[in-house]
Amino acid sequence: MKKEVAAYIAGFLDGDGSIYVKLTRNNTYRFRFQVAPYIVFYQSQKAGEKFFNKLQKIIRSGYIRKRKDGIIEYIVGDIKGLLLLADTVYPYVRLKKKQVQLLQKILQEKEKVKTAKDFLKLCKKIDEFKKLNYSKKRSIDVREVRKILEKEKLLTP
Amino acid sequence: MKKEVAAYIAGFLDGDGSIYVKLTRNNTYRFRFQVAPYIVFYQSQKAGEKFFNKLQKIIRSGYIRKRKDGIIEYIVGDIKGLLLLADTVYPYVRLKKKQVQLLQKILQEKEKVKTAKDFLKLCKKIDEFKKLNYSKKRSIDVREVRKILEKEKLLTP
Repeated sequence: MKKEVAAYIAGFLDGDGSIYVKLTRNNTYRFRFQVAPYIVFYQSQKAGEKFFNKLQKIIRSGYIRKRKDGIIEYIVGDIKGLLLLADTVYPYVRLKKKQVQLLQKILQEKEKVKTAKDFLKLCKKIDEFKKLNYSKKRSIDVREVRKILEKEKLLTP
Repeated sequence: MKKEVAAYIAGFLDGDGSIYVKLTRNNTYRFRFQVAPYIVFYQSQKAGEKFFNKLQKIIRSGYIRKRKDGIIEYIVGDIKGLLLLADTVYPYVRLKKKQVQLLQKILQEKEKVKTAKDFLKLCKKIDEFKKLNYSKKRSIDVREVRKILEKEKLLTP
């Protein structure tokens, strides 16, 4: 990818994008929670559809979702795509530099999780996103994860 | 300015920026309306203040305005600054290419306005922004300008 294209995507991400990791309760997972990392771009449907199709061809991962409120989202949620996109925008991103770094770290540590303790450490890192994103939404935090892991006796002392 | 910086600004403008021209009734102007062109960038106050200060140093024009709703705006409204910024982002901008072109055209034609007829032509061009920006706001259009110019006998047949 050309430098100018990478820098453009970084600018667009700083303007109208979002980087976050979502924890979802899910008992089919070993540690009872799913860890879902995302980079999402937003636009109005009218302006954004063609544009997101092009962006998807450039970035070569992710999918497009039309919301009912007229917003269209371009969502990258697969690990390989996320790692590549994070590396691509990292040198140019300005407002969301810390978020990109944190995402990179979480993606690396996610692969290395072996014990419930490792998993709790990962969740603690995920909590850091809330501060960086000034998020006011209620979402699952490390305390809640610890409670479940203790309850299910997955955390050996 | 480096290509990557210009491309970054273009991406940010596509994501969180706006290009428009505002007509305001003002009898101190020869044709009774002020033509005010703008490129504006938006951000939340928390994230945006430092960033906009840097952006202002790079772009070397415009001013920063804190709104009461927690949004901060970086506004470029002077002709010289606008021409330079439009030229800078033009090669890289994707979503707002037509808006940049239209702004450039309007800035050029604004300088050449001699008669009330020229002014009406200019206002017609300004109307085109509404379609491009999917604007639903009520704003002064060429009809309203024509009415005033006729009323004030500025339009010679």
